[in-house]
Amino acid sequence: MKIVDSKQFLLEKSKRTKEDVDFDQSVLAIIREIQKNGDVALKSFTEQFDGVSLDSFQVTKEEIEEANQIVDETFIHAVKNVKKQLIDFHEKQVETSWFMEQSEGVVLGQKVTPIEKVGVYIPGGKASYPSTVLMNVIPAKLAGVSSITMVTPPDETGKVDPQVLIAAKVAGVDQIYKIGGAQAIAALAYGTETIEKVDKIVGPGNRYVAEAKKWVYGQVGIDMIAGPSEICVIADETASPKYVAADLLSQAEHDEDATAVCITINEQLAQNIQAEVAKQLQTLDRQTIIQTSLERNGRIIIVESLSKAIDLANEIAPEHLELMIEKPTEYLPFIKHAGAIFLGEYAPEALGDYFAGPNHTLPTNGTATFSSPLGVYDFMKKSSIIHYTKSALMKAAPFITTLANAEGLSAHAKSITIRKDEEDA
Amino acid sequence: MKIVDSKQFLLEKSKRTKEDVDFDQSVLAIIREIQKNGDVALKSFTEQFDGVSLDSFQVTKEEIEEANQIVDETFIHAVKNVKKQLIDFHEKQVETSWFMEQSEGVVLGQKVTPIEKVGVYIPGGKASYPSTVLMNVIPAKLAGVSSITMVTPPDETGKVDPQVLIAAKVAGVDQIYKIGGAQAIAALAYGTETIEKVDKIVGPGNRYVAEAKKWVYGQVGIDMIAGPSEICVIADETASPKYVAADLLSQAEHDEDATAVCITINEQLAQNIQAEVAKQLQTLDRQTIIQTSLERNGRIIIVESLSKAIDLANEIAPEHLELMIEKPTEYLPFIKHAGAIFLGEYAPEALGDYFAGPNHTLPTNGTATFSSPLGVYDFMKKSSIIHYTKSALMKAAPFITTLANAEGLSAHAKSITIRKDEEDA
Repeated sequence: MKIVDSKQFLLEKSKRTKEDVDFDQSVLAIIREIQKNGDVALKSFTEQFDGVSLDSFQVTKEEIEEANQIVDETFIHAVKNVKKQLIDFHEKQVETSWFMEQSEGVVLGQKVTPIEKVGVYIPGGKASYPSTVLMNVIPAKLAGVSSITMVTPPDETGKVDPQVLIAAKVAGVDQIYKIGGAQAIAALAYGTETIEKVDKIVGPGNRYVAEAKKWVYGQVGIDMIAGPSEICVIADETASPKYVAADLLSQAEHDEDATAVCITINEQLAQNIQAEVAKQLQTLDRQTIIQTSLERNGRIIIVESLSKAIDLANEIAPEHLELMIEKPTEYLPFIKHAGAIFLGEYAPEALGDYFAGPNHTLPTNGTATFSSPLGVYDFMKKSSIIHYTKSALMKAAPFITTLANAEGLSAHAKSITIRKDEEDA
Repeated sequence: MKIVDSKQFLLEKSKRTKEDVDFDQSVLAIIREIQKNGDVALKSFTEQFDGVSLDSFQVTKEEIEEANQIVDETFIHAVKNVKKQLIDFHEKQVETSWFMEQSEGVVLGQKVTPIEKVGVYIPGGKASYPSTVLMNVIPAKLAGVSSITMVTPPDETGKVDPQVLIAAKVAGVDQIYKIGGAQAIAALAYGTETIEKVDKIVGPGNRYVAEAKKWVYGQVGIDMIAGPSEICVIADETASPKYVAADLLSQAEHDEDATAVCITINEQLAQNIQAEVAKQLQTLDRQTIIQTSLERNGRIIIVESLSKAIDLANEIAPEHLELMIEKPTEYLPFIKHAGAIFLGEYAPEALGDYFAGPNHTLPTNGTATFSSPLGVYDFMKKSSIIHYTKSALMKAAPFITTLANAEGLSAHAKSITIRKDEEDA
């Protein structure tokens, strides 16, 4: 893992500009085909991409029952405990409607309602992510979403990971379909004979899923365009190089494009972390992935002061930010952009990934500058309420007609004055 | 204006499926050119599309001073009053950070911070929309956005509408540039020599602006993809046909693609509204636009009951919904999807467009099923906070390692156990 200064780091970073999700014509072709031919197209793409011919996409009760038999009890117990933790945190995010009597005869308000139908994409293939099921479904349930459809690609035998099925059952998913890729996103966005169209699609996926989500955005809502995972650890001389190294390595194991960065003010510490990374790496399962990821994006950056470290972290706007410093809460007010902030040496990222309660679906790729962790608020929406009495409207009338006429929209003005004329008549 | 039943209406509607914003290669070419050549490209596109060669894009203090001289005092007074109204409503939306002591040694929280840099697109050309400036800028100011950049295309003489400049000044815009179209969106998303890159872009625009916004989404945040404006009026026998007609016409004057729909339970009322529309139309300025819009999308729909009317409105999920019925508040709980809801006969849409306080930037095209009016929440974002003590982490450890190992991410598990081992050592 390279040690660099902040200038070098920023220079490298500027060369790796944020990549746009580009539009592949093949992704568009898949979407259009699903729109046109529904289930028939879905079946054919599933054969082509997942290598299995399915007579029915829906996961049956029997399959869920079977998963219940296969899966370890310790796992089910853990899933149920995590569910509790997630509910505990996320229920604080539930918003309620409010009304105000603004002045005599004027009532304004904001009505909050759940989104009705939500689609959750869960990646399949080599990786299995039951935790992602919980993280996406539980806030939707708390919001009051009435129908949650989960989609996940089947393996070559037409099965779905039983752990993912258990997580879906515990979280409260309403229906599960064995479909994946851009075709699953299109099916959720437009509906087919068997898949009901949803209002919003959430959940991570590969490049094709991300492209398809961007494409259907507007037709349905989407949560975000997720990029590879990132960690930024700020460490001072009180930090344990062992812990810092372990957390950097845990991030790097995600995939070759994951980013693990440490910012420190102490050169000796930088070297100790570097040595620890090399040492611990030897004991880990996913060494090749970690090595590639660290080579590409793993850096230990030395800066002059903690406040410089915070500035740099704000510039990075990392998905995960760990403050492994003596007084983390003192620096918290200066953190402007980060998906999740971990304070102190006993709050490693993995705690947030799996257990603590806040969502692990977080803005990546610098998008923490404008977006938030997935939350209950992503599954609720607002309607404004306006009620005026006649006399209140008459008081407002001159302002409305002035602006409407200034914009050349005289029928707007007329819709006010016609109510006045009535009064005068 | 045609009278139809709900079956006919839904049939017509199903044929007019929600249109995706498609990606025009020419829009992409403009964006890439701005990324590559910055100001030079911006200057050249402004010559090409706005027909004017500008030496400097920025609106000067002198130009704003000049606007102040030209513009009517009544207008300035109205703008200031609307600002007050908007602040009054929107300040209720300001969110604050919160923390919870979840259990012993566990502090969780949600830190709320403003987005730093926002770009606001204001359409130019034939139309001038000072009200849109207020509606987009005031929630951003309340959120605490530190830099607001407004862009709006210049006319052929290189000028910007003075009313728009006054609204920008009153609202508190930090800098204004005379650029428009896809090139302005690209300049805000990627930055050029003179235009600073922003974190989020809001504001309405034509098809090219919408496409460009969808394209740069992910690189920056965007508010929504806005479609043509819509109204749905639910009217019972207590409604005044005159008022209903006036409100439908006010919507139809926006443009040829605007949608004005009335749902009623009374055939006589339907005919009276139809007659009123025809009569009032004669007195209005924008007759050709209104006629085209009504022909395309204007319908009076007769249904059997008020509850059927509400069901249909929920299916439409209109941008604006007026309840011109005897007891509007009794039906409010059943409204699930609408951008803004206007209660009673003295709350015409124009009141909300210009004065009442809630935002007039609302979800169109059925997107009220998953999105909200523009608000302060669009200019703030959240970071999760996690702090655990050692003993709290040790209690959570078995759950975390179980899930991490189940997902095959052993370095995640290791980042927990390494902290445990230390304890045991």
